[in-house]
Amino acid sequence: MKLKSTLPLVAVLALAPGLGMAQEAAEAAEATTDLAAASTDSVFIFNSLLFLIGGFLVFWMAAGFCMLEAGLVRSKNVTMQLTKNIALFSLAAIFYYLIGYNIMYPLGNWTIGTDETGGYLGAFGVAVLEAVGVGRDAADDYGYASTGSDFFFQLMFCATTASIVSGTLAERIKLWPFLVFTIILTALIYPIQASWKWGGGFLDSQFGFLDFAGSTVVHSVGGWAALAGAIVLGPRIGKYVDSRTVPMPGSNLALATLGTFILWLGWFGFNGGSQLAMGTVGDVADVSRIFANTNTAAAGGAIAALILTQMLYGKVDLTMVLNGALAGLVSITAEPLTPSLGAATLIGAVGGVIVVFAIPFLDKLKIDDVVGAIPVHLFAGIWGTLAVVLTNPDATIMGQLISIVIVGVFVFVVSLVVWFILKGVMGLRVSEEAEIAGLDTAELGMEAYPEFHRG
Amino acid sequence: MKLKSTLPLVAVLALAPGLGMAQEAAEAAEATTDLAAASTDSVFIFNSLLFLIGGFLVFWMAAGFCMLEAGLVRSKNVTMQLTKNIALFSLAAIFYYLIGYNIMYPLGNWTIGTDETGGYLGAFGVAVLEAVGVGRDAADDYGYASTGSDFFFQLMFCATTASIVSGTLAERIKLWPFLVFTIILTALIYPIQASWKWGGGFLDSQFGFLDFAGSTVVHSVGGWAALAGAIVLGPRIGKYVDSRTVPMPGSNLALATLGTFILWLGWFGFNGGSQLAMGTVGDVADVSRIFANTNTAAAGGAIAALILTQMLYGKVDLTMVLNGALAGLVSITAEPLTPSLGAATLIGAVGGVIVVFAIPFLDKLKIDDVVGAIPVHLFAGIWGTLAVVLTNPDATIMGQLISIVIVGVFVFVVSLVVWFILKGVMGLRVSEEAEIAGLDTAELGMEAYPEFHRG
Amino acid sequence: MKLKSTLPLVAVLALAPGLGMAQEAAEAAEATTDLAAASTDSVFIFNSLLFLIGGFLVFWMAAGFCMLEAGLVRSKNVTMQLTKNIALFSLAAIFYYLIGYNIMYPLGNWTIGTDETGGYLGAFGVAVLEAVGVGRDAADDYGYASTGSDFFFQLMFCATTASIVSGTLAERIKLWPFLVFTIILTALIYPIQASWKWGGGFLDSQFGFLDFAGSTVVHSVGGWAALAGAIVLGPRIGKYVDSRTVPMPGSNLALATLGTFILWLGWFGFNGGSQLAMGTVGDVADVSRIFANTNTAAAGGAIAALILTQMLYGKVDLTMVLNGALAGLVSITAEPLTPSLGAATLIGAVGGVIVVFAIPFLDKLKIDDVVGAIPVHLFAGIWGTLAVVLTNPDATIMGQLISIVIVGVFVFVVSLVVWFILKGVMGLRVSEEAEIAGLDTAELGMEAYPEFHRG
Repeated sequence: MKLKSTLPLVAVLALAPGLGMAQEAAEAAEATTDLAAASTDSVFIFNSLLFLIGGFLVFWMAAGFCMLEAGLVRSKNVTMQLTKNIALFSLAAIFYYLIGYNIMYPLGNWTIGTDETGGYLGAFGVAVLEAVGVGRDAADDYGYASTGSDFFFQLMFCATTASIVSGTLAERIKLWPFLVFTIILTALIYPIQASWKWGGGFLDSQFGFLDFAGSTVVHSVGGWAALAGAIVLGPRIGKYVDSRTVPMPGSNLALATLGTFILWLGWFGFNGGSQLAMGTVGDVADVSRIFANTNTAAAGGAIAALILTQMLYGKVDLTMVLNGALAGLVSITAEPLTPSLGAATLIGAVGGVIVVFAIPFLDKLKIDDVVGAIPVHLFAGIWGTLAVVLTNPDATIMGQLISIVIVGVFVFVVSLVVWFILKGVMGLRVSEEAEIAGLDTAELGMEAYPEFHRG
Repeated sequence: MKLKSTLPLVAVLALAPGLGMAQEAAEAAEATTDLAAASTDSVFIFNSLLFLIGGFLVFWMAAGFCMLEAGLVRSKNVTMQLTKNIALFSLAAIFYYLIGYNIMYPLGNWTIGTDETGGYLGAFGVAVLEAVGVGRDAADDYGYASTGSDFFFQLMFCATTASIVSGTLAERIKLWPFLVFTIILTALIYPIQASWKWGGGFLDSQFGFLDFAGSTVVHSVGGWAALAGAIVLGPRIGKYVDSRTVPMPGSNLALATLGTFILWLGWFGFNGGSQLAMGTVGDVADVSRIFANTNTAAAGGAIAALILTQMLYGKVDLTMVLNGALAGLVSITAEPLTPSLGAATLIGAVGGVIVVFAIPFLDKLKIDDVVGAIPVHLFAGIWGTLAVVLTNPDATIMGQLISIVIVGVFVFVVSLVVWFILKGVMGLRVSEEAEIAGLDTAELGMEAYPEFHRG
Repeated sequence: MKLKSTLPLVAVLALAPGLGMAQEAAEAAEATTDLAAASTDSVFIFNSLLFLIGGFLVFWMAAGFCMLEAGLVRSKNVTMQLTKNIALFSLAAIFYYLIGYNIMYPLGNWTIGTDETGGYLGAFGVAVLEAVGVGRDAADDYGYASTGSDFFFQLMFCATTASIVSGTLAERIKLWPFLVFTIILTALIYPIQASWKWGGGFLDSQFGFLDFAGSTVVHSVGGWAALAGAIVLGPRIGKYVDSRTVPMPGSNLALATLGTFILWLGWFGFNGGSQLAMGTVGDVADVSRIFANTNTAAAGGAIAALILTQMLYGKVDLTMVLNGALAGLVSITAEPLTPSLGAATLIGAVGGVIVVFAIPFLDKLKIDDVVGAIPVHLFAGIWGTLAVVLTNPDATIMGQLISIVIVGVFVFVVSLVVWFILKGVMGLRVSEEAEIAGLDTAELGMEAYPEFHRG
């Protein structure tokens, strides 16, 4: 995702004080001397429309995570997983509005730091949209897009980060401490670190960090928070017996596959919308490149996992293929624009390979990640962020590495502290009996599939 | 939803007879003296595109209702619920084309009434689209959008109304009388009352009724029709034993949650598309406000139900959370534009509260609403329609109240009569044996999940 | 789908060498003398946006096929069906990039034939997108759309063809030979025959073949390939006992219905995007007509199957209704633009009738098509292709018939040969024990619903 564009000359002219509006506009249009271009209003509309379409596609990813996770947990925990997913999205929506948005986009009003020296902590205050029926001269950023569309789009990224966490911690965490963590993540942790890059903060201005749509800023953040949680929470009962990992197969692979397809679809909005503009030939062609590259990276990840599991285990593993596709998507997210189709396929394929090796590796460490979110979002996120240097000459390996480390340390440490506090204050885990009986009956009194006998 | 816009001056100029087309267009463009604005063609394209995107999103709501209802009925009735949903949508598509569209939008040709005095009954005739490759001077409404896009969008609203009914009456109503009711609802009941507001009828001209996207015109109408049906049909066997309500849990909460996410997604099209225009800075900024407000209202409804069920019952109730989100969406539908994000969240939250109290309330009245559609669509619809006065100074409490009552009485009484006639002529309920065995085997001979043992 | 548009005069002017870019553009705009029109950049953006939206909707059809097929197979084969679907889409993405795209669109560089005399075999080479941030004078086709958007859109059609095959051959074909066939289909078979029409090849130039969005070019091709596979593969064990057809009901009709709704939604992009342009009043009005016609054809197909199964069998058959809707969609795909809403409904309804009779007819021939893909995509595809002559005066019955036959013979014969070779080299069928045990445990070692007991 680029920084929000600054006003182009033509818009500045149009907004110049002391002129009548129609006159301004006429002058602005003349100033371009480019009648083949889209009019300045049209550019604003196209950009806003990109955010609205991108936004609803990324919203849809919330459903994708929900289905993926509901399909990968055992049936006795499905209702809980569904509840967590719809609740976390709703909380993200409310707290990003109340706190997160202005922390992430201080527009110069940094609480700590400035745009020039690099900001560290953004502004406090609720998000405020433009007035109803706003005119072009009163628009918050006429050279960019409507604030409502920007808010809508950005909110969905924040919610995505929270969605990543729920899968890792499934089948044993209590509902309410998880939701409290979600609030802290979406109101503070995510927006603060996101401001460092996308709000014009110090990672952007001092380190030249490049992360187009958020392999690090979104995906690895969710992964770090999940990793901290998994460590504090511990593995599920019976998952690791001696040095053996006990498989606990998901209850509904059709649902998990549906979730993967939903995420894949939503990712076109995630990466494509992060172009932040489509009102010129170059911008819409770039959005198109991004759609094509995003798709082929997912395909590369899926096929890499398909072939690799066949080679390693003698049979294809569907859940690995699904996670391979997702890892391909995460891998291309830091730079979906500059790679060729071939490079994008390979970048995604490496993501798929990472997942196939990382999932058993985590199990060896006895870190119990129920759905494989840490390999997919954290490991492939790091890979994708580093891979930017392969195709984008503006990226430096040091700028990427330092930024990965800074974001990682910040998110992991803060998350760890928050999880420990929540453990102390509320308790994180359900009781042993509840975990064995399943969270659905024990905690919610409601089964997801009450009529399908459990084997 | 606003009334269809009348032609702006520029379009009138462009359509003036006696001038060559290119000349006209040039003059029209000059007439604006506003070269920053989108061209008149672009405005037409943007508006049509809004309807196409909005329309396919609202189409998707048909799938949402289908999944929600299939998830909330018992597994022995799932095939029937799926059949009803795909059939009702198909019938709505055909009968809105044959009859409904022109009744709803008489464009001045009222059978009873006029635009000036207020229309009461629209025009009869099938929907006719513009010619293939229509030029701007031959377009039905060049200052607005293509007729095909408008038809496509409006059709989906009609189908939504029908979808609402099927959930309430599930698990006991016969297929064919339900489908006959659907035909009457989509060909006549819905379009007639919708014409009173959106077709420029008497509720619009005489009462100043405001209902942006249809809390009353769509949702409460579905709710009233469902309520009438539930009364005539009676509760399911065994639902109310003495004064006790027997829980009959849904068979697949993952599916119900998926349905809720689908509806949430579709609602961006439902409310956003109802701006009816996005070809200016003000219009696209308004569509953006609507997207953001629609989302936050759903979140408010979900969180209100989450907290309230925890407080009331000591545990969160997922089906209440899902219905809370939907009630939040219905609540904001009458006015998704004027509220601030904070107000929208609260309006939605009240919807969530309504649902939590209304569902057991209906049970006390022994009105058996299988999926909670009456609380969600009727009660929250009334709330949302009244709540317009909180944020839109053009609304009056009397105008809203009178319109709610007029629409409610009309739809409820007509529906009641139709249901009684259908009961007399065809019979409404399946036999007792069929109901106990399940409609799938008894009526359709086909199980939805033939291999999953029932508990 | 129309042929890619050739450059309009204005674009040619804009691209004339030897002029400064701004000057060119100004001249280009002046050349139109039509200031009501969308600017040339805006037309490019609108067209590209149509492909991006259409493309993600058609992508979504891959999920639709996956859910439809997973719902219609028995639970012991669900994981395999999911695996095949995600793998075939991924392979299609990669091989259409590597080979298919340039074979399909040689842009004059035919390996055999020329644009003038009619091409027979396209160009070899990987797909290459425009440069990042391309300017209007460097765009591949400034009068059309960005190459990335076109590639993205066209790729999805290729993948759709592959999706059709997997359903027919379910429950008995091995994974890897199926995937090898998918590669050949998407890299060669589909693109070669598609080039004959959409790439400007001989069916287009010599026979005046009309197939707007691909009733023949996409759907019948999938159907022919599936038919060849079904013949070589043979029916499932126990499907045909003596002259009796043994029903093998799908395991999850909710999933199958979801898949149908997904496909229905995606089809708006499939047919609507095939207008290939929406930058003028006429084009966007045409896209709108197509959306409306596509929807009503699906409704017609569903209702025809609903009524017909009630009449024939005394009860409605949901799977027939679902396939009826899909057959309606396939039927309208060859010409979704010229029919009136009424004609579109009837064209779709005939598709629904075809399905109801063709499914038992295939069973009589002991051709085992697990999901009914051959009736839906091949038979209704032929019907739809012929039906073009009913509403489009440019079509001739001979041109349509000859093209259907040429495409059919080519695809069927080549597919037959490939299937036979695969049978000889790799073996096509799983072992008898594996088929009876189910492909999920036998081939993949992973059940889709491990906790739901099988009946």
